[in-house]
Amino acid sequence: MSECLFCRIASGSLPTEFVFEDEHVVAFRDINPAAPVHILVVPRAHIETVADLGSDETGVMSRLTAAANRIAREAGVDAGGYRLIVNCGREGGQTVFHLHMHLLGGRKMPELAA
Amino acid sequence: MSECLFCRIASGSLPTEFVFEDEHVVAFRDINPAAPVHILVVPRAHIETVADLGSDETGVMSRLTAAANRIAREAGVDAGGYRLIVNCGREGGQTVFHLHMHLLGGRKMPELAA
Repeated sequence: MSECLFCRIASGSLPTEFVFEDEHVVAFRDINPAAPVHILVVPRAHIETVADLGSDETGVMSRLTAAANRIAREAGVDAGGYRLIVNCGREGGQTVFHLHMHLLGGRKMPELAA
Repeated sequence: MSECLFCRIASGSLPTEFVFEDEHVVAFRDINPAAPVHILVVPRAHIETVADLGSDETGVMSRLTAAANRIAREAGVDAGGYRLIVNCGREGGQTVFHLHMHLLGGRKMPELAA
């Protein structure tokens, strides 16, 4: 069995409510939300970091974005706006080493901290 | 002449030092950096927001990510880590309404604010 938390979620071995899923992507609420809407959009394939995508010929990031855009509409945050974040590596703030995109919305996002 | 700041930068009508450019993408330093490395990665095409990409069939976000990954390596922040951010709309913190990806690195990124 995979030791990776997000692989276990994506495969269904760790039961999780999905707000979106298709052949390539699953999405679910962050258990420690940083905004009223805080969804993690995750490829089913185990890819450690966004850096591992290199030039991303297979379009993983576009697929995650497509899902995020759709989830934002369904969550009703598309009119106001939202923020997409991908943390890469420890200095980037990545804590689970399976690529994921944060979708944050439902309040005004803070300025990028200097 | 375009009124859009990033269209003017991408076309060269507003002289700007690029840290990367190709047929589809330009990248340059943020004039108000929020980290030691703070680069904006911008499609040459005028697309207002990431939401306007919809399902992003043409792979715009993957192209921006490919450029960001390459710039991160060249800037030497790939080993430590980095953060990619796309702000969408006013609540998302978007200030220039021409799609852009922030690449932030060179220090530990803060946790996502609750």
